[in-house]
Amino acid sequence: MANEFKHLVLVKFKEDVVVEDILKELEKLVQEMDIVKSFVWGKDVESHEMLRQGFTHAIIMTFNSKEDYQTFANHPNHVGFSATFATVIDKAVLLDFTAISGKAT
Amino acid sequence: MANEFKHLVLVKFKEDVVVEDILKELEKLVQEMDIVKSFVWGKDVESHEMLRQGFTHAIIMTFNSKEDYQTFANHPNHVGFSATFATVIDKAVLLDFTAISGKAT
Repeated sequence: MANEFKHLVLVKFKEDVVVEDILKELEKLVQEMDIVKSFVWGKDVESHEMLRQGFTHAIIMTFNSKEDYQTFANHPNHVGFSATFATVIDKAVLLDFTAISGKAT
Repeated sequence: MANEFKHLVLVKFKEDVVVEDILKELEKLVQEMDIVKSFVWGKDVESHEMLRQGFTHAIIMTFNSKEDYQTFANHPNHVGFSATFATVIDKAVLLDFTAISGKAT
């Protein structure tokens, strides 16, 4: 488990976007690429608006290494998806980091 | 694995803060509470500044259920930590959500 690499995206989608379609497309992309170890997403319905600052969805992808993430990021399928993604979001924050485990499952 | 619940925090710490000390304190808190299933954190050194918008650290905690998260959130140890945490951060975004798995490990 040591030194997994995470690609984290917080998103606020535009109001007229069918979010399910976007997430299905992302799921398809991820499932076609063995290099992506795991992928979860969620919609915040819990936090106070003040705390989530308008962000509605989180996406977390996990890779075995930073190199695997970079390979994914530069893959034409991901580059293509990102271009589409950019057109459907109101705002986003991205963080990419080596995950330090403070408590393992 | 279905319906894990995630507590996600993006943070920009104040400049004079010893981040390691804060994270150690958080790790201690989490390890003392069985209800927290896993805990990882990371420091972004990869994304473009524009993409991460000043946020430097991500914290991801995983729980078996929303109820477990709520129990954790309301626990005096967490409430106490949060009060301290609020004094050391420049800004933060929180998202709490049921994790939908698009690809499992």
